[in-house]
Amino acid sequence: MSDKILMTPGPTMVPKEVLDVCHLQPYHHRTPEFYELFSCLNSNLKKIFKTNMDVLTLTSSGTGGMEAVVANLFKKGDKVLVASIGHFGERFYDITKAYGLDSDIIDFGWGNAVDLNKLEDALKKNEYKALIVTQNETSTGVTNDIKAIADVAKRHDVPVIVDAVSSLGGIPLEMDEWGLDAVVTCSQKCLMSPPGLSFVALSERAWQMAEESDLPKYYFDLKKARRGVQKEKPDNPYTPAVSTIMAVKKATDMLLNIGMDTVYKNQHLIGEKVRKTIKDIGLKLFPDESISSDLLTAVEVPEGYKAGDIINYMSERGILITGGQAHLKGKIIRIGHMGYITDEMLDLTFDALKNALSDLS
Amino acid sequence: MSDKILMTPGPTMVPKEVLDVCHLQPYHHRTPEFYELFSCLNSNLKKIFKTNMDVLTLTSSGTGGMEAVVANLFKKGDKVLVASIGHFGERFYDITKAYGLDSDIIDFGWGNAVDLNKLEDALKKNEYKALIVTQNETSTGVTNDIKAIADVAKRHDVPVIVDAVSSLGGIPLEMDEWGLDAVVTCSQKCLMSPPGLSFVALSERAWQMAEESDLPKYYFDLKKARRGVQKEKPDNPYTPAVSTIMAVKKATDMLLNIGMDTVYKNQHLIGEKVRKTIKDIGLKLFPDESISSDLLTAVEVPEGYKAGDIINYMSERGILITGGQAHLKGKIIRIGHMGYITDEMLDLTFDALKNALSDLS
Repeated sequence: MSDKILMTPGPTMVPKEVLDVCHLQPYHHRTPEFYELFSCLNSNLKKIFKTNMDVLTLTSSGTGGMEAVVANLFKKGDKVLVASIGHFGERFYDITKAYGLDSDIIDFGWGNAVDLNKLEDALKKNEYKALIVTQNETSTGVTNDIKAIADVAKRHDVPVIVDAVSSLGGIPLEMDEWGLDAVVTCSQKCLMSPPGLSFVALSERAWQMAEESDLPKYYFDLKKARRGVQKEKPDNPYTPAVSTIMAVKKATDMLLNIGMDTVYKNQHLIGEKVRKTIKDIGLKLFPDESISSDLLTAVEVPEGYKAGDIINYMSERGILITGGQAHLKGKIIRIGHMGYITDEMLDLTFDALKNALSDLS
Repeated sequence: MSDKILMTPGPTMVPKEVLDVCHLQPYHHRTPEFYELFSCLNSNLKKIFKTNMDVLTLTSSGTGGMEAVVANLFKKGDKVLVASIGHFGERFYDITKAYGLDSDIIDFGWGNAVDLNKLEDALKKNEYKALIVTQNETSTGVTNDIKAIADVAKRHDVPVIVDAVSSLGGIPLEMDEWGLDAVVTCSQKCLMSPPGLSFVALSERAWQMAEESDLPKYYFDLKKARRGVQKEKPDNPYTPAVSTIMAVKKATDMLLNIGMDTVYKNQHLIGEKVRKTIKDIGLKLFPDESISSDLLTAVEVPEGYKAGDIINYMSERGILITGGQAHLKGKIIRIGHMGYITDEMLDLTFDALKNALSDLS
C-alpha cells in the first residue's frame, strides 16, 4: 500500500479524521441516519459555496459535474463562450461541443490568466448564452480573478459558469455575492476527501435556463437532484457514494470549524511559502507571480534537468508531485498544496526537491 | 454512527477486510501503485463477468452505467425493446426515452419473470436494435432466466443488454457464453463494496454499434474508458473513486478466492434458507417460488399488519429491511441477502421478523 505524500493537483491527502469515517460501514441511503448526514452536508456545502441556493451532490468525478451543468442549462446549438487558460478550460469546451453547443473558445494561453479587456471584446461580438471559466487552472498553476470576470459578464448580462473543481474551499469564492450562475467542485481537492463526488450549485437564473434545456440527461438530471435535497428527508435519486458523503461531511465540518476566512488565509500563506522557497532555491515560477495559484505551484524545469528525473527522484523518496500536461510535458513540474497540507509535508517536499536538484545535477 | 445490519437491496454489508482498505490513504490515480491495482481489478472483473472483453469502471452509481450503455450504443430514434418485470426495467426504459430512442416496453407485471413466448412474439413484430432486460429485479425479488432470454433474442439476431446491477457476482451470468452484448453492474451489491462505482462490459457487436452512435456523451464515453483500460499502464480518463476501486479489488479477490461456483452455490443456499424460513413462519412469498431471487426475498405483508410497522420494529432492533416500491408500497416487505451475508445476520433477521409478527399482532 502507498505511503506517499500526495503533493499533487488531486486527489490530495485525506486527513486521518476523514479516513476514519471511511472505515465505517456505509449507511443505507434511505434511512434517518442518512437524511441527517445529508442534511448536514448540504448545509455545510452552502456555507462553503457561499450561496443560499441548493448545492447538489452527484456521484461522479468533477468532470461529471461539469457535464451536468452543460446538459442541464443549454439547448442544442446554444452559443456559449469558454474563456480558457489551460487544460481544464479546454475540457469544458470539449464537453460543450460533445453536446452540440455552438461554443467559442478564447485561449488566453497556458500560463496566463483571463485578460478582462479581451474577454469584454469577445462578449461584445456575440450574444452568448453563458460564459464558462476556470477559477484555478491546475495545468498551469494560475488562478483567475472570478469576481472581476463576473463583473465583466454582468455588464453584458451573460450568465457565468465557474469550474471551481480544484479551488472551492481553498480560495475565496462568493457564489451569490459575485453573481455566479453555476459552480462545480468535487470531493478530492480542497474538500480533503477521497474522489467520487462532484457538487453543483445553480443560481435562480440558471434554474430558469434549465427549464428550457432540451439536451438528453437522466443520471445527471439536476432537477431530480434538487427535488432530492429539497425533501424534508433529503436524499439522492440514485444510490450515492455514501462513504464519500460521510467523508465530505466530516471534512467540511473540519473546514467550517477552522472558519473559511482562516482556511483561505492559511492556504494563501502556504502558497506564499512555496513560491518563496522555489525562488530561494533558484527555480523560476512558470506563471507570473501575480496570478500564481495558492493551491498549486508550477515551476519551470531548470536547464540541465529532466522533469521526469526530478519527479521520479522525489517519488522514490515518498513525495509525489506531477509534471506538465500536453505541450508543457517536460517543461514544468507541478507541486500541489491544496486541502490538507501540514508544515511537515511542505518541509519534506522542499528537502526532496533540493536534494533532487543537487543529486541530479 | 449506524451499526445496523443492512438486509437491503443495496448498499449491502461491506466485510471488515474491505472496510480496512477504505481506511487507507487513496492512491494517486496516475502512479505505478494505481496501475497495478487497476490492472488486477480489471482482471478480477473479467473473471466475474465471465468475459474476455474489457470491463470498464465508471465513477457513478449503477444507473450511470445503464445510461452509459444507452448513450454509447444507440442513435436517436433507434428502436429498442425493454422487457420489464418491475421498477428497474422501467428505469432502463425511462433512460432510453430520455435519450430520444423509439423504445417499446413490454411489461410482464411486477412479480412475474419474462415470458419467453410473449417476448418472442414482440421480437417478431418489430426490428429492434436491442433488447434490454433486468437479471434480478430487486423491486419484486424475481430473477429472470437470462440464458433463455438471450437464446430467444439470438434467434432474431437482436443484441441483449443486461442490467445485472444487483446480481453480478451473486448468481450465474456468463457474458461470453450466453452471447450477451452489454452487462452493467455496480460496487454496492454482490461485489460487497461501498457504493460509487459502476462496471460495464460490451461485446464486439456492441462496440460496433458504438461506432455508429450519435448520442451526446463525454463523461460516460465508453470508448475513452476502453482506451484507458487497454493501456500498458491502465487508467481512467478522469479521476476515479480510487478508494472504492481499492475496495472492489479487495472484495473481488475475496470472491475469486472462494471461487465463483461456490459463491453462487452459497448464495443459492442462502436464498433457499430464507424462503424456507419465510414459509415456516407462515408468511407468503410475493413471487412464485420458481422465479424467486436468491439475492432478495419479497414477502407479502400478512393480513392485520402494516409493512411500515414491521420495518420500523426490525430497524429499532438493528435489522434494516425495506418495503415495496411504487404500487407495492405497503403490500410487500423486501429482505436483501446478497453479497456479504453470514448465518448470524440471517438468524438475527429471522428472530427480529418473528418477534415483529408476534409483538405487532
